[in-house]
Amino acid sequence: MAIIVQKFGGTSVGSPQKIKAVADRVLRYKNEGHKVVVVLSAMSGETNRLTDLAFQMQARPDTREMDMLLSTGEQVTVALFSMAIKEAGHNAISFLGDQVKILTDSTHTKARIQSIDTEKIFKYLDEGCVVTVAGFQGVDGVGDITTLGRGGSDTTAVALAAAMKADVCEIFTDVEGVYTTDPNICAKARKIDRISYDEMLELASLGAKVLDIRSVAFAKRYNVPLHVRSTFTETEGTWVVEEDKIMEDVIVSGVTYNKNEARVTICGVPDQPGIAAKIFSPISDADINVDMIIQNQDTGAGLTDMTFTVMRIDYVRTMELLKGVAKEIGAKGIYGSDSITKISIVGVGMRNHSGIATTMFNVLANEGINISMISTSEIKISCVIAEKYTELAVRALHDAFVLEKPDLPSEAYELDNPKK
Amino acid sequence: MAIIVQKFGGTSVGSPQKIKAVADRVLRYKNEGHKVVVVLSAMSGETNRLTDLAFQMQARPDTREMDMLLSTGEQVTVALFSMAIKEAGHNAISFLGDQVKILTDSTHTKARIQSIDTEKIFKYLDEGCVVTVAGFQGVDGVGDITTLGRGGSDTTAVALAAAMKADVCEIFTDVEGVYTTDPNICAKARKIDRISYDEMLELASLGAKVLDIRSVAFAKRYNVPLHVRSTFTETEGTWVVEEDKIMEDVIVSGVTYNKNEARVTICGVPDQPGIAAKIFSPISDADINVDMIIQNQDTGAGLTDMTFTVMRIDYVRTMELLKGVAKEIGAKGIYGSDSITKISIVGVGMRNHSGIATTMFNVLANEGINISMISTSEIKISCVIAEKYTELAVRALHDAFVLEKPDLPSEAYELDNPKK
Repeated sequence: MAIIVQKFGGTSVGSPQKIKAVADRVLRYKNEGHKVVVVLSAMSGETNRLTDLAFQMQARPDTREMDMLLSTGEQVTVALFSMAIKEAGHNAISFLGDQVKILTDSTHTKARIQSIDTEKIFKYLDEGCVVTVAGFQGVDGVGDITTLGRGGSDTTAVALAAAMKADVCEIFTDVEGVYTTDPNICAKARKIDRISYDEMLELASLGAKVLDIRSVAFAKRYNVPLHVRSTFTETEGTWVVEEDKIMEDVIVSGVTYNKNEARVTICGVPDQPGIAAKIFSPISDADINVDMIIQNQDTGAGLTDMTFTVMRIDYVRTMELLKGVAKEIGAKGIYGSDSITKISIVGVGMRNHSGIATTMFNVLANEGINISMISTSEIKISCVIAEKYTELAVRALHDAFVLEKPDLPSEAYELDNPKK
Repeated sequence: MAIIVQKFGGTSVGSPQKIKAVADRVLRYKNEGHKVVVVLSAMSGETNRLTDLAFQMQARPDTREMDMLLSTGEQVTVALFSMAIKEAGHNAISFLGDQVKILTDSTHTKARIQSIDTEKIFKYLDEGCVVTVAGFQGVDGVGDITTLGRGGSDTTAVALAAAMKADVCEIFTDVEGVYTTDPNICAKARKIDRISYDEMLELASLGAKVLDIRSVAFAKRYNVPLHVRSTFTETEGTWVVEEDKIMEDVIVSGVTYNKNEARVTICGVPDQPGIAAKIFSPISDADINVDMIIQNQDTGAGLTDMTFTVMRIDYVRTMELLKGVAKEIGAKGIYGSDSITKISIVGVGMRNHSGIATTMFNVLANEGINISMISTSEIKISCVIAEKYTELAVRALHDAFVLEKPDLPSEAYELDNPKK
C-alpha cells in the first residue's frame, strides 16, 4: 500500500464527463489499497474566463483580488470531483489551500509555499476518503488567498507529496510523458523513461512545457519521485528521479527550444567598472527579466558590446529603455531581434564527455545556421539562432545525438517501492 | 457620517459593466463621508450554472461539496467589484465568509449565522477602504464553507449591519421597493414608503419575493433599519422599520399571493387522540413542510376531515404517502388540488379594526370566488382559492382596501440619523 499524490491538469478535468473519468481512474488506485490524494487544476478555459473578467474591471488588476478571483477555478473542480467520487459510492472530501494550511508568503499571483499541515489529510485518508486538494492556491499569514503562478498545481502536488512523504507524485497531463524533443516538429521524438531532476530542471527552464520548473526543484529538494504520464492512456510515462536511479549512461537526454525570447545588443559601450549596472538597473526597475547575458572582451579600443535576451513581450519596452541608457553612457548604438530561438541540448552525461559542444556547433554549421549567442551550464548547452531555423535545428540535433534510440532497459518502478 | 451596509443582488452585478455601475454608486456614498460595507451576490446565472454542473456529477449532490461549489459565485463578484473600486482610484478590499468569521452552524446549504467578527472590517473602513463581503456564505466550527440558502445574501447584509450596529442596511434590487401588491397583475399597485418588520415578515412568508424572510426576522430582532430600493434609479424605496416609526394608521398594507402550494384533504378520519401525529409523521419524515392545517369539528359521527397545504413540488409525493396513511388509520378517502392560490391581506392596523376579515370574504364572494381554507394571524388573513381567480381576487382586494391611496406624508429618513 502506497501513499500517492495524483495531479490532474485543466484539460483532464475540462468537462463533467472528464471529471467522472478521472474519478474512475483514481478509484482504481484506491481499490488496489493505495491512499490517494488528488490535486486538481481549474477546468480548462476557466482561468482564461476569469482573467478576461478581471481585465474588464481593471487595466492592471490588483493582485490580491486577482488571487481571490482565480482561486475559485480550482475550488469548483475539487467540489465537482468529490461529488463524482461520492456518486461512485466512495467517500471523498475536498479542501482548499487555507483548509489544509498551505501557508505561503504574501507575493500574490506568484506566492511560494512555506509549509503544509497534513494532519487533516491523513485523518480523512485513514477514514477511507479520497482527499482532494485545490491546486494552485494557498493562504498567507494574514489569511488572504494567494496563488502560486503558472504551473502552480504541479507545485501544490509536489509540495503535498513532500510534506506527506508520499511514495510518488503522479502528474497526469495530455501527453504521455517527457519527450526527447517536441514531437510536433520532430517525428523521431521519443518518450523518455527516466530522467534526472537536474535534466528535467534544465528542460523545464528551457521551454519544455510538460512540468513547471518550480515543482521539479521542489521534487529534487525533497527527493519526491515524479511520474509524468497521460490522463488518457494506461501507459507508463516518464519518471523524474534522483540521478543515481538512472541506470543508463545517456549523454544527451533532450533537445529543447524556446521562442519566447528576444535578443538585444548595446554596442560601443565604454568598458568601465559599473557600466553593466547602469545598463541593467533601469531594466530590472521595469520588472523585465533578463535571461542570457554576454559581454565581449574589450579588444583594445576601450569599448565593448553587451548582448542579452529578454522575454519577447518585453522587447519593445526594453529597446525604448535602452535608447535612454545608450545616450546617457555614450554607447554607439542598440540593435536587436525578436525573431530568435534559443535551442538547447540537455544531459547529465555531458559532465563526463568532452566534445558535445563542438558536435552541436558543427551540426548547426553543417545546416548553414548561424549562432548569435552561446551559453552553457554543466549539463546543457544553449545557442541563440534565427527563429526560422528552429525546426531544422531541432531535427538535426535529434539525429546527431541519436535520441530516437530507446533508453537501455531499466527495472520498472513499482508503486509499492518506487524509491528503490 | 453613517455606517451603511449595502447589498446588491445578482441582476445588479450581472456583468462587468453593471459591477462598474454599482461601484460608481457605492463611491458616491463614500464620497459623502459614509463608511460603506458592500455585500454582493453571485452574478446572475452563475449559481444556476454551478448547480447544473453539480447535478451532472451527482443525482443528489453532497451538501458540503455543494457549498464548496456555490460559494465561488460570490467570491468572483467581490473580487471583480474590488477591482472596479480600485480602478476608480479608491481603496478596497474583499472578504469571504471565513475571512471575517461569519460563523454558522454546520447545516450545509441552509446554515444559520451564529456570530460575525467585525474587527477586520472596522480596521479597513477606518483606513478608508470600501469593504466588500461575499454574501450567502459562512464557515462552520471545523472550517468548512457553508451557505445560507435562498436569499442568503440578504441575511449576510442584515447580520453584518446588526453586528456592526450600522445605521442602515440597504437592499438594492431590480424593483423600486415593496409594493402593495404585485404590479404585474394590478396596475394600481403602489410602492409602500414605510412598513413594519411584522408586516414585512408576513408579506415575505406569504410570497412577496423582494426580501428573504430570514433577513427580515434578523433585522427585527436587532432593530436594523432596512431600506429596499432599486439599483437602477435614485428614488427612495421602502423602509422596513419598527412599528412605532410608522406614522400612518394603515389598516391593510398589502395584498399578496402564493401559487407554490397545493391542498390535500384526508376525510372521514376517526376523531381520536394521536390521529394528527399519525397523519403528519410520515410527511415530516419525508422532509415535506406543511403550511396551513385545518381540522374540522367532529359533527357527531366520530369522524373528522383534515385539510392542509404543502409545497406544490411535494404534492404528488404527499398524496402517495397519504394513501398508505389513510389505509392504516381507516380514513374514508383523500383528495386534493395543486391548482390553488393562497391569497392574503396584511396590516398591523387589523389589530385595532374589526370587520376586516368580513370585508375580505365579502369581496371574494362578490366576485363569485369560493374560499376553501382560511387562516388568520394577528396581522394577516389568508384564504385558499382556485388558482384561476388569483388576478381577479388581487385586484378586487386592492380596490376594496383602497391601497392605491398614498401613505400619509411622513418625515423622510435621513441617512445620518435613520433611527430617529
